Amino acid sequence: MTAPQQAVVYDSNGLAPAIVQDAGTKAVLMLAYVDQEALRRTLESKTTWFWSRSRGEYWNKGATSGNVQKVVAVRYDCDADAVLIEVEPAGPACHTGEYSCFYRRLDEA
Amino acid sequence: MTAPQQAVVYDSNGLAPAIVQDAGTKAVLMLAYVDQEALRRTLESKTTWFWSRSRGEYWNKGATSGNVQKVVAVRYDCDADAVLIEVEPAGPACHTGEYSCFYRRLDEA
Repeated sequence: MTAPQQAVVYDSNGLAPAIVQDAGTKAVLMLAYVDQEALRRTLESKTTWFWSRSRGEYWNKGATSGNVQKVVAVRYDCDADAVLIEVEPAGPACHTGEYSCFYRRLDEA
Repeated sequence: MTAPQQAVVYDSNGLAPAIVQDAGTKAVLMLAYVDQEALRRTLESKTTWFWSRSRGEYWNKGATSGNVQKVVAVRYDCDADAVLIEVEPAGPACHTGEYSCFYRRLDEA
């Protein structure tokens, strides 16, 4: 039997972009990267796990800050190379304290 | 003066992921990639332009299908390596005819 995380097509670094969306407000909160193991942990724990490219380690969102993201649904796109995780966030998604990492407009800079 | 598209941090291939969201329904429609030129064209034309990694060419969404995405806002994230484009879509985002490319759930497969 194929595990769900094996349905995703990962890039040459073994990663796929994962969009995190607030299941309630529908706001896009952040974009991070998953490998097969991070996605497996996300599906199993029902909390978001990512691969940190800068730190080179797995990262359970909110494990230190308390701003855990409870997973409501995990979707993948038509060509299976991107993931959309719908969550209920316990607090801000951004390390700056902003609710969403996308708090700045580029077209009004 | 720095152009807005220069504020984005592109990867080693010169690309950054761009999330496309319906400005009205807030649904996430698709994820594609922009380089600096695609983002410049998006900001200038107020329609979405991407770099197609598979075809190796610029791609103005809807130019052939008619399913143009009118740009309402362009946002970027805290570390400036991902873009969120809010649009008014003229039709389905997905080449399958689905409204969103994320029409499948991975956690119910």
